[in-house]
Amino acid sequence: MTEEKAGDALCGEKDMCPQERFMRQAIKLARQSVEQGGGPFGAVIVKEGKVVATGHNQVVPSCDPTAHAEVSAIRAAAAALGTFDLSGCEIYTSCEPCPMCLGAIYWARIGRMYYGCDQQDAARIGFDDSFIYREMALDPVRRRLVSCRMLADEAREAFRAWEAKPDKTEY
Amino acid sequence: MTEEKAGDALCGEKDMCPQERFMRQAIKLARQSVEQGGGPFGAVIVKEGKVVATGHNQVVPSCDPTAHAEVSAIRAAAAALGTFDLSGCEIYTSCEPCPMCLGAIYWARIGRMYYGCDQQDAARIGFDDSFIYREMALDPVRRRLVSCRMLADEAREAFRAWEAKPDKTEY
Repeated sequence: MTEEKAGDALCGEKDMCPQERFMRQAIKLARQSVEQGGGPFGAVIVKEGKVVATGHNQVVPSCDPTAHAEVSAIRAAAAALGTFDLSGCEIYTSCEPCPMCLGAIYWARIGRMYYGCDQQDAARIGFDDSFIYREMALDPVRRRLVSCRMLADEAREAFRAWEAKPDKTEY
Repeated sequence: MTEEKAGDALCGEKDMCPQERFMRQAIKLARQSVEQGGGPFGAVIVKEGKVVATGHNQVVPSCDPTAHAEVSAIRAAAAALGTFDLSGCEIYTSCEPCPMCLGAIYWARIGRMYYGCDQQDAARIGFDDSFIYREMALDPVRRRLVSCRMLADEAREAFRAWEAKPDKTEY
């Protein structure tokens, strides 16, 4: 069976497959977010077939530039499950994540992502995530963000304190 | 005057220059974070020569995989200033930011960054941010994170709702 046919078997039936159901929930959150003054983005985190948390964009209503749908959903899922490790979870997001959210997905150890709109769709309505992706790929001295390294030796002292700590929780 | 000499004039004097003072505060937060069970990372956000917010890594104590020092400091600064737009702010971070935090810095419109340790220092003590940087540069189908696009047309409905909203706050 080809991958496409496997997909058809999962999602092409009259009743919604679970993946469609979760994605439609993420899309509904995105639409509701617009009504509530947020950006048009929603996300759902699922573990073992059950929704453990949801999130929607709250940058403007919460005055928080990090309150994207995926970051919000990850924070809520970690709080709900009582762990920073979301291994075994899936994320459904109404739009392909920006670098910040993609980074958060990796740190949370989420293994599988479903997305609806993509970066190009987002750019068309004024959310130019691809600018940030391009900046990240550049050498720091070529980025628009001015950056300057300083006091590296002193900064490494905190790392040595971490290394020397016998009872640390590594993550 | 070469750039190096300009740097000496700023930072080489007996009294600490402001940049050194803010970086030392970030490093102190990183050391304190280790004592409190967090990762060895601290950050300070400065506007017009004054500290507006600080942050330290709280991933383990707060059960929040997004609670890195920089994200925490950005959230606190946005709350303190009552805006998601931190234009005109500088960030001092004890270690070069991971992709999640670098993304947050861009979204917050912070224009200048000072950092102490770098990615290589972080990797040496087990924080392999460079893995995430490498993953981001890959085509999504080649990433370790499995990703699947679905229901794109339905997802675009939320974007159309955003476009049609007359009183939206763009960001």
